[in-house]
Amino acid sequence: MNVCAATASDASVDPLAPLLKALRANAPERDRLGGHAAEEKALIRAEGLLLDAVPKKHGGHGRSWSELLGTVRRIATVDSSLAHVLAFHHLQVATVLIYGDDEQQSRWLGATVCEQGWWGNAMNPLDRRLEAHAEADGFVLDGTKSFCSGTSGSRYMTLSAVPAGDNGPMLLGIVATQQPGIRVLDDWDPIGQRQTDSNSVAFDRVALPARDVIRASDATPTAFQTLRACIGQLVLVNLYLGIAIGARQEAHDYAHGGTARPWVTSGVAHATDDPYTLNRFGELHVQIAAGTALADRAAHALDAAFAQGHALDARERAEVSVAVAEAKVVTHRAGLYASQELFEVVGARGTRAALGFDRFWRNVRTHTLHDPLDYKLNLLGRWSLKGEAPTPSLYN
Amino acid sequence: MNVCAATASDASVDPLAPLLKALRANAPERDRLGGHAAEEKALIRAEGLLLDAVPKKHGGHGRSWSELLGTVRRIATVDSSLAHVLAFHHLQVATVLIYGDDEQQSRWLGATVCEQGWWGNAMNPLDRRLEAHAEADGFVLDGTKSFCSGTSGSRYMTLSAVPAGDNGPMLLGIVATQQPGIRVLDDWDPIGQRQTDSNSVAFDRVALPARDVIRASDATPTAFQTLRACIGQLVLVNLYLGIAIGARQEAHDYAHGGTARPWVTSGVAHATDDPYTLNRFGELHVQIAAGTALADRAAHALDAAFAQGHALDARERAEVSVAVAEAKVVTHRAGLYASQELFEVVGARGTRAALGFDRFWRNVRTHTLHDPLDYKLNLLGRWSLKGEAPTPSLYN
Amino acid sequence: MNVCAATASDASVDPLAPLLKALRANAPERDRLGGHAAEEKALIRAEGLLLDAVPKKHGGHGRSWSELLGTVRRIATVDSSLAHVLAFHHLQVATVLIYGDDEQQSRWLGATVCEQGWWGNAMNPLDRRLEAHAEADGFVLDGTKSFCSGTSGSRYMTLSAVPAGDNGPMLLGIVATQQPGIRVLDDWDPIGQRQTDSNSVAFDRVALPARDVIRASDATPTAFQTLRACIGQLVLVNLYLGIAIGARQEAHDYAHGGTARPWVTSGVAHATDDPYTLNRFGELHVQIAAGTALADRAAHALDAAFAQGHALDARERAEVSVAVAEAKVVTHRAGLYASQELFEVVGARGTRAALGFDRFWRNVRTHTLHDPLDYKLNLLGRWSLKGEAPTPSLYN
Amino acid sequence: MNVCAATASDASVDPLAPLLKALRANAPERDRLGGHAAEEKALIRAEGLLLDAVPKKHGGHGRSWSELLGTVRRIATVDSSLAHVLAFHHLQVATVLIYGDDEQQSRWLGATVCEQGWWGNAMNPLDRRLEAHAEADGFVLDGTKSFCSGTSGSRYMTLSAVPAGDNGPMLLGIVATQQPGIRVLDDWDPIGQRQTDSNSVAFDRVALPARDVIRASDATPTAFQTLRACIGQLVLVNLYLGIAIGARQEAHDYAHGGTARPWVTSGVAHATDDPYTLNRFGELHVQIAAGTALADRAAHALDAAFAQGHALDARERAEVSVAVAEAKVVTHRAGLYASQELFEVVGARGTRAALGFDRFWRNVRTHTLHDPLDYKLNLLGRWSLKGEAPTPSLYN
Repeated sequence: MNVCAATASDASVDPLAPLLKALRANAPERDRLGGHAAEEKALIRAEGLLLDAVPKKHGGHGRSWSELLGTVRRIATVDSSLAHVLAFHHLQVATVLIYGDDEQQSRWLGATVCEQGWWGNAMNPLDRRLEAHAEADGFVLDGTKSFCSGTSGSRYMTLSAVPAGDNGPMLLGIVATQQPGIRVLDDWDPIGQRQTDSNSVAFDRVALPARDVIRASDATPTAFQTLRACIGQLVLVNLYLGIAIGARQEAHDYAHGGTARPWVTSGVAHATDDPYTLNRFGELHVQIAAGTALADRAAHALDAAFAQGHALDARERAEVSVAVAEAKVVTHRAGLYASQELFEVVGARGTRAALGFDRFWRNVRTHTLHDPLDYKLNLLGRWSLKGEAPTPSLYN
Repeated sequence: MNVCAATASDASVDPLAPLLKALRANAPERDRLGGHAAEEKALIRAEGLLLDAVPKKHGGHGRSWSELLGTVRRIATVDSSLAHVLAFHHLQVATVLIYGDDEQQSRWLGATVCEQGWWGNAMNPLDRRLEAHAEADGFVLDGTKSFCSGTSGSRYMTLSAVPAGDNGPMLLGIVATQQPGIRVLDDWDPIGQRQTDSNSVAFDRVALPARDVIRASDATPTAFQTLRACIGQLVLVNLYLGIAIGARQEAHDYAHGGTARPWVTSGVAHATDDPYTLNRFGELHVQIAAGTALADRAAHALDAAFAQGHALDARERAEVSVAVAEAKVVTHRAGLYASQELFEVVGARGTRAALGFDRFWRNVRTHTLHDPLDYKLNLLGRWSLKGEAPTPSLYN
Repeated sequence: MNVCAATASDASVDPLAPLLKALRANAPERDRLGGHAAEEKALIRAEGLLLDAVPKKHGGHGRSWSELLGTVRRIATVDSSLAHVLAFHHLQVATVLIYGDDEQQSRWLGATVCEQGWWGNAMNPLDRRLEAHAEADGFVLDGTKSFCSGTSGSRYMTLSAVPAGDNGPMLLGIVATQQPGIRVLDDWDPIGQRQTDSNSVAFDRVALPARDVIRASDATPTAFQTLRACIGQLVLVNLYLGIAIGARQEAHDYAHGGTARPWVTSGVAHATDDPYTLNRFGELHVQIAAGTALADRAAHALDAAFAQGHALDARERAEVSVAVAEAKVVTHRAGLYASQELFEVVGARGTRAALGFDRFWRNVRTHTLHDPLDYKLNLLGRWSLKGEAPTPSLYN
Repeated sequence: MNVCAATASDASVDPLAPLLKALRANAPERDRLGGHAAEEKALIRAEGLLLDAVPKKHGGHGRSWSELLGTVRRIATVDSSLAHVLAFHHLQVATVLIYGDDEQQSRWLGATVCEQGWWGNAMNPLDRRLEAHAEADGFVLDGTKSFCSGTSGSRYMTLSAVPAGDNGPMLLGIVATQQPGIRVLDDWDPIGQRQTDSNSVAFDRVALPARDVIRASDATPTAFQTLRACIGQLVLVNLYLGIAIGARQEAHDYAHGGTARPWVTSGVAHATDDPYTLNRFGELHVQIAAGTALADRAAHALDAAFAQGHALDARERAEVSVAVAEAKVVTHRAGLYASQELFEVVGARGTRAALGFDRFWRNVRTHTLHDPLDYKLNLLGRWSLKGEAPTPSLYN
C-alpha cells in the first residue's frame, strides 16, 4: 500500500533491485544519447525476464499479466524506454499465443526459451506500406513499416502486411529478424522514449512461408483475440504509472538530499516540513494510489479473461476493455502530473541538465500521445451513458 | 465493473432493490421536510439490515466491512441521510465489539438482535460539555452533547463523557435511549444530510453504572481499538461515493427521459449523442471508478485488520489508515464533482425544485466538511515524503 | 484592485452601501420563501437605478454598460436574483434602444422615466407557443411564454411572438403589463435564483398595435442589433462574478467572526493563519481577479461597440462577442468554484440552514445552465483555431 | 483581442516581424546547442530595442513598461531565452533609474545609448559569496556570483556584494564587464531557457569606485525602489505568457499543416473540425486571454506607479505587487498548460526531436521555478483574507 516505501525497504531481498539500480544509474546519459541500449537489454535478458510471458509448457515462467506488468511498471520507474521494449517483447509472445496454432506456438516459443531471444514487431496498424505478394508456399514481403519498437537487436518479429492489391485487413506473420532482405533503419529520434528502438524496418523480397502466417487477412477475430489490444493498452497504463512513481521517487530522494533548502519565507527548518510541499506529496500520492488501484484491477480482469481463451464472450471482453480504459485515463494524467510536479518539489536547482529530471515528462508526454485521451473518455461515456460496449479495435 | 449498469440489470434479483426504490421515491420531499424519517427507518429495519454488523455468535449476520459498506454505499445513491444513519448504527455496534468485554458484547448485542433496535450515539469528540460524576457504582451524567446522529428513534446509544473536574480523555459508555433524564432535542437544521437526526442530546442526572462503561478515561487504546476512527472515515468514503453514483444515475435517467433535448447548435438528434455530454459522462465514470477501486481496497484492508483483533500492530493499522485516506480524498472530490456536474447534463430544465437534484450537492457538501481535505493530504504527504505513520486520532 | 477590501472601506461614502446592506440582511430568508420581492424591488427603484440605462436625452442617467454592469455585479454579491431582475430591466431598455425607432424610444423610455417603471420580458427564443395574429392595425397575441424574468410587478414588457401559421423568426413588440388579457402565472420554483420572477405569462387576445412592433419578423438584423445577445451574456458574466465575490465575502467575514476555529492539528492560534486556508483564499482571489479583468475588458469593448450604433461592422461585433465569451467561461467557473469553496473555509459549522450559505451555489448553478459551457469553448476554439467569427445568435 | 490572429495578420506592417521570423527559424537548433546566441543578440541590438527603457532625456526611446513588456512577450513567443536576456537588460536599465543619482544615470545611460551596449547582472540575492572590501575610494570586489543572466557579451553589469565582514544587506554597484579581473564562466547547462547565459561570474580584485556604488548597503529603500522586484516579476509574467502564446501558435500552424490527420474514429474530414480539438483550443484561448488581461492590467498599474517616482506610497506599491502576483499565478499555469497541451493537438507525430516542440515546456518549467507558486498564493491569501500588504522583498 505504501508505494513509496516499497522500493527502499524491499531492496535487500528484491531480486529486481540490482537491475533497477543499474538502469537508474545511467538513464539520464542514455536519454541524451538515444539509440540502442544493447548493454542494458543484455542485463534484462540475463535476469531471465524474456521468459516471463512464455507458458510453462513451452519452458517459460508462465507468469500472469498482473505479475508481468508489475515488473514492467517497476522498470518504468527508472527507465520507461527499456520497460517499453520488455513489455512489447511480452506483447509479441502474447500475439503468438493468441493467433498461433499449437505448432507455431511450440516452434516459436520453444525457440524463444532456448535462445532467450528478444521479440520485435512491425505491426503498426496505421502504416499500410508493407505488402504481401502471394507465392507458391506463402508470401513475399515488400515495403516499409514505421514505429517498429524493439526490432533492433531482436531475433524474431511479428508483422502485419497488406495482401497485395487489397484494401482490407492485414495478415499477421512472424519472421526471424536476421532473415535476408530485412533492414532495420535508424530513424527514431523523438523527444522522449528515446531508447525504444522504434525505427522503421524495410523489407526487400522477404519470404513469409504459409506456416509462419498466424492470422489470415480474412479471419474474423474471436473475443479472445481482440484482447491483444487490451494488453497493449495495459502496457501503456503501467508505463505511465511507472513514470509517475519514478518521478515521485526522484522528488522524494532530492528533498531528502543535501541540496534541498526550505523557501526563504516558509518559516520551517527543513524543506520536507514545508506545509505546501507536504500537500504536494500528498497529492502525488493520491494520484499514484488511484492509478495503482485501477491498473491492478484491470490486470486482474485481464488475467481472468485471458485464462478463458477462446471461450471468452463479448461482454466479458468489454468489461476488460472498460477497466483498462479507466486505468488509462487516470494514469495518463498521473504521469503528466507527477513528471511536471516533480519540479515544484526539487525547485530551480533541480533543472540542471545533468540531473536529467525532464526525461520523465518527455517520456510520458511522448507516450501518452499513442491514442487520444478524448476518445478514451468518449468510449467510457458511451459505456456509462448508453451502455455501449467498446468496439474492439487496435486501440481498445 | 460496470457501475452504471449494476443498478438496472440486477434489479430483478436484487434483494435491496425494493428498499432503494422506496427511498428514492420520496427522497426529494423528505429532503425538503428534514426531520425524522420514522417510516423509512422502519423499512430498513424490516430488511434486517440492523443485524449486519453483529457477529454470528451473537445472533447477527456477521457481515464483513466490505459487504456492510457496500450496502451503505448503495443506499447512499438514493438517500445519503438514511445511509448515514444505518452506517452509524453499524459503527456503534463496532464500538461495542472494539471496547466492550465479553459480557457487555453479549448483553448489548444480544439485545440488538432480539429487539432489532437502532443505535444512536453521543460521541462528538470536540464537545466536552457532557460530564460524568463518579457515584457509588459508576457515574451520573450531566450536560449536553451535539451532533448525536441517529439518536432520535434509537434504543441504545454510545456516548463519551468527560470525568468531572478532569481535562483529559473521555470515558466511553452505553445507555438505553429511553432511560430517564435523556432528552433528544430538535435542533438539527442543516443545508444537507437533513434526515440524519444529528440533534443535540441533553442529559439530566442520567445513571451510567460501571458495568456499562466500555472504556475508562485513562485507558490506552490498542492499535485495534484505534481502527474505530478508520471505520468512521470509511463510512464517509462510501457515503461520498454513493452520492456520486446516485448523481450520475439521475443524470443518466434524465438524459434518457423525454425532457432532454440536444443543444441547438450540437448537430445531433439526441442529447445522448452530444460529443461533450458523452465525455462528461466518461469523466464521471472515471472519477467514480477510481473512487470505487480505492474504497474497495480500503475496505478489504480494514477487513483483514479487523479480523486480527488486538493482535493488530501499529504498522498494519497505519496502512489501513493510509488506504482509507487515499479513498477519502478521491471520493470527496468525486462526490462534489458529480453532484455539480449532474446539472451540466440535465441542463436548465433540471433546476426545478420539485426534482430536488440539488440535494446531492447539498448532502455531499455538508458531509465533506466533517474534517478538512487539506489535513488528509498533509497526512498522506507525511507518509509519502517522510514515512510518518498517521497519528491515530478521532479523524484518522 | 483589492476586490475584497472595496466593500468594507468604501462603505461610508458609497451610495450603494445602504441598499446592499438591506438586501444582504434578509437574502437567506427570501431565498427560502422564493416568490416576488416587492419591497426590495421598491428599494432598488427608490435608488433611481431604473433610469441608468435610459439615455440622457430621454431623461435617464445614460450610464455606460461598464457602469451599469458594475452596479449589477455589486448587487449580485448579496442578491443575485434581484441583480438579475435589475439587469434584465436594463436589457429591455436596451432592446428599445436597439430595435425601436425614434418615436418608440421616445414614447416608451419617456414613460419609463416618468413612471420609474420596471420592465419585464416575454422573449424566450426557444418557446414558440405565443402567436401573433394579424389584425387591422397590427396583431392580436394568443398563447403562453415561459421564463418571463421580471414580469411580475413590471409596467412594460418586451415580447417575441411567432406570426400565426409561420415557421420562421419571431417579431418583437412591447406591451403594458397591465393590459387586459395578460396574466402572469406563479410557476417559478427553481433550486436557485428563486426571486427572479421567471414565471410564465399567458396572453389571451392581447392587442399589439403596429406602432408597438419594434422588429418585424422578416427583418434582417444589423451587426449593432445582434449586440443584444452580447449584452444578455455579459449580464450573466457579471451575475456569476458577483456571486463569486459575494461567496468570498461571506467566507472572509465568517473567518473573522467569533465562531471560526482553527483545525485541531493545524498548530495555529487563529483560523485565519492556517496556511491552507490562506492559499484557498489566494486561489479565490486569483479566480475573481481573472474574472474581473475579463469582465471589465468585455464591458469596455461593448461600450465602444454600442456607441457606434448601426455603423458597427461584423468584425468589431465578433470581437465583442469573443471578449464576452472569454469572460463567461472564466466567471462561470469562478462562480461555481467560489460558492463551493466558501464551505471549505467556513467548515462544518457553516452548514446551518439559517446561514443560507448554500444559496450562492444554488444561484450560480442554476444560472450557469443558461447555455452550455462546452459550446462557448467550441465558439472560442473556432475563433482561435480556424479564425471563424461567432455566428450571431440568441446566445452569442 | 484576438490574440491568435495578431501574429499572422499584422505581419506585413509589423516592424518586429522580421526579427520574430529570424528567431523562430533556428530556435529549435539553438535550444539543442545552448550557449551564447551572439548573432541573435546582434539582431535584437540592430533593431534598437536596447534603448527602449532608457528615458528620452538620456537619448533613449522612453517606452512605458506596457510597451516594453509587450515586446518582450512577443519575442518570448518564439524564443523565451532571448526575451529573457532583453528583459533583464531593461531591468538593469531600470535599476540605474531606480537607484542611481542624476550623474550616474546620465553617465551610464548615456553610454548605453552611444554604444548600444547590453547590460548583464550579478545580482542574485541568495548568493552571498561576492564580497566588497572597503578601499581608499570605494571597494575592491572578490568572489563569485551565480545565475548572472545576460552577462556574456554584455558591456555593463549591475552587481550586489556583501560588505566584507558583514552579515547584513548588500550594496549595489555598476561595473564594465570588460574591466580587469572579471571572468564570465561557462557553467550554465539547464533543461530549459538554455540561452539566457545565466553563467557564474568570478571577480578577482575588481575595482568598484565609490561613484559607481548606486546603493549603500545600509540604505533604506523607498516604496518606489522596491518596485524593482515588481518589474522583475512582471518580466516573468510576460515570458510565461509569451511561451503560452507561442505554444498555441505552433499547435495552430501544425493543425493547419499537411501532416495533421483527424483521429480514426472522429468522423470528421479535417483535424481542425474535431470537436474535442476545437474545445482544447477554446481552453487554450481562455487561459491566454485571462493571462493577457491580468498581465496588461498589472503593466498599466506599474506604469502609473513608476511615473510617480519617490512620491509613490506603500499602499499604491502594494496594489502593483498584488496585480503582478495575480498575473503571475495565472500565467504560470497558462504557460505550463499550453506547452503540455500543444502535444494533445499535434499528436504523436509532433514528438520528433527535429521539431523541438518540447522546448516550450522545458523553458516554462525551468523559469516557473524562479520562486514558488505556493507562496504567491499565500501572499494573495494574506491580502484577500487579512488585508496584509505584501512585504516588499526580492520576489514581491
